[in-house]
Amino acid sequence: MQIKRPYALFLGDAPDQLAAKTAGGIAEWRADWCVGQVRLPDCKADLGITDLSVEAAAKAGAKTLVVGVANRGGVIGGAWLDTILKAIDLGMDIAAGLHQRLADVPEIKAAADARGLQLFDVRHPAQAFAVAAGKRRPGKRLLAVGTDCSVGKMYTALSLEKEMKARGMKADFRATGQTGIFIAGSGVSIDAVVADFISGAVEWLSPANDADHWDVVEGQGSLFHASYAGVSLGLIHGSQPDALVLCHDPVRDHMRGLPDYRLPDIESCMELNLIHARHVNPRAKFVGICLNTSAMSAEAAAEMKDSLSDIFDLPCVDPLKDGVGPVVDRLADL
Amino acid sequence: MQIKRPYALFLGDAPDQLAAKTAGGIAEWRADWCVGQVRLPDCKADLGITDLSVEAAAKAGAKTLVVGVANRGGVIGGAWLDTILKAIDLGMDIAAGLHQRLADVPEIKAAADARGLQLFDVRHPAQAFAVAAGKRRPGKRLLAVGTDCSVGKMYTALSLEKEMKARGMKADFRATGQTGIFIAGSGVSIDAVVADFISGAVEWLSPANDADHWDVVEGQGSLFHASYAGVSLGLIHGSQPDALVLCHDPVRDHMRGLPDYRLPDIESCMELNLIHARHVNPRAKFVGICLNTSAMSAEAAAEMKDSLSDIFDLPCVDPLKDGVGPVVDRLADL
Repeated sequence: MQIKRPYALFLGDAPDQLAAKTAGGIAEWRADWCVGQVRLPDCKADLGITDLSVEAAAKAGAKTLVVGVANRGGVIGGAWLDTILKAIDLGMDIAAGLHQRLADVPEIKAAADARGLQLFDVRHPAQAFAVAAGKRRPGKRLLAVGTDCSVGKMYTALSLEKEMKARGMKADFRATGQTGIFIAGSGVSIDAVVADFISGAVEWLSPANDADHWDVVEGQGSLFHASYAGVSLGLIHGSQPDALVLCHDPVRDHMRGLPDYRLPDIESCMELNLIHARHVNPRAKFVGICLNTSAMSAEAAAEMKDSLSDIFDLPCVDPLKDGVGPVVDRLADL
Repeated sequence: MQIKRPYALFLGDAPDQLAAKTAGGIAEWRADWCVGQVRLPDCKADLGITDLSVEAAAKAGAKTLVVGVANRGGVIGGAWLDTILKAIDLGMDIAAGLHQRLADVPEIKAAADARGLQLFDVRHPAQAFAVAAGKRRPGKRLLAVGTDCSVGKMYTALSLEKEMKARGMKADFRATGQTGIFIAGSGVSIDAVVADFISGAVEWLSPANDADHWDVVEGQGSLFHASYAGVSLGLIHGSQPDALVLCHDPVRDHMRGLPDYRLPDIESCMELNLIHARHVNPRAKFVGICLNTSAMSAEAAAEMKDSLSDIFDLPCVDPLKDGVGPVVDRLADL
């Protein structure tokens, strides 16, 4: 599965900016893959990139219309159908990350089949995976883990890939969630894989590679999240990380979606992740801590970063404000 | 989903006893649910129960023909088809735990639909589950965990349920694998659930209950198994166990299917299971160790049980040889 580029980002009738955050992530990390945004008249989201009609997007060379908008229920909105069908008529593949499959909407399926075009439902794995073999394989791997869901693991991994490539290192971001898959152009929505095959799917996603090549694997969930921890553990075992980065949101007062659960302290979280990582790779170690400090004052953020850096003897940064240079420095010895 | 009883156990053309181990487990634990075994002429397995033709099984009152035989690839053998269709013609539901679904064999599906009979593909969850809520719920729960796969977790859980019921305690075995589902009459094949919903499926399987009721939850895999650990962790979080029993096979020299991995030592295994269990239930504790000593001399087994019992201050038994009375004794204080 490789989604063809460039993309036209379809924002539909997004009621606010948050509803279009998938498209926002793509525009931020892969601006050069996007010919522009396609919006319906009542769309309230705006990525600040060129507005195009579907026809103009096709003329600009777009190969895929990416449905970068979500709605409650994850279904394909009736208001979106005309645009999607027009894009197919103009020769574009369609890609979406919704619960409902594009291929399950009869008009879309029929139109794509008639034109010989592809439909990518990136939330739904397109293939069967093997059970994980657990064998060590060449190449190096970094995994972003978290104290909770949605604490910046994808942004951290993408920042690391960008910095590593800027330094001329061999590195690939390996996407495990829907937005990440659009940004990478391929990947596996790991939480949608059948439970027996979580680690096997990660082994497939991050295969043997050059000894000096780094796979930067997007993490999911947290070992401490009572809903999703199995996914997080399968990611650790499947990726056999040489390096781990801990991601954390300092202002969150409970686990996402679980009001009864406080976030773990950073030390416990690192310890537990290391126990599981060292079971499959005895050399696994943490190389940095990445904070989302967007809701903190500059002083409070600086104090916290200094303090954590001292306690754990690791670089501690906000990837979006500070970059991740000091974390990448730590990879040189691995 | 409730599989109707009594069962006729279909052994097909099983080439050896092991191929019919699903039927063997049902006959051992639920003899009074089974009218007998149905075997093809070249069947090499024998459960030592009444041999019946399908017609005789129907006359004896069988409501469901259980396909209790597996073959390489998990497909529905051509040689089995006549028997399955005859059972449907005689008014029986059909239940199987193979990879291939009964419902995907056109002749079987058409015949069952025509008669208004049910097909149970117990390896494939029949419903969607919610994401786990992580909330404490009334009732008590015991979970069997293991140093590895296939170390006796199901037999341990069934022994515990039997002993608890014999003592007049409120207890239900909660099945998480295919053989267990036939034995319980219902359950969830937890390793076939989509990764995001592992813990949610366990919450569904073990709902709120009387304060003095015990769910005895069948474990799967091991936190130390590099292929399946995500399933094991989801089971811990979803079941929120008050009590844990550790299952172990002392003569195994590497993890099942993973020649590069030794089994964890019992202390590390208990510690790691407790960390995860206490995250969702701070009162979680181990109440016993269950060994499969079938390949050990009586002296070696006795010595090992005494030694482990001393070290961990817990009862240590082989459930099939010693029963699990001392383990159930420990539940009184919980």
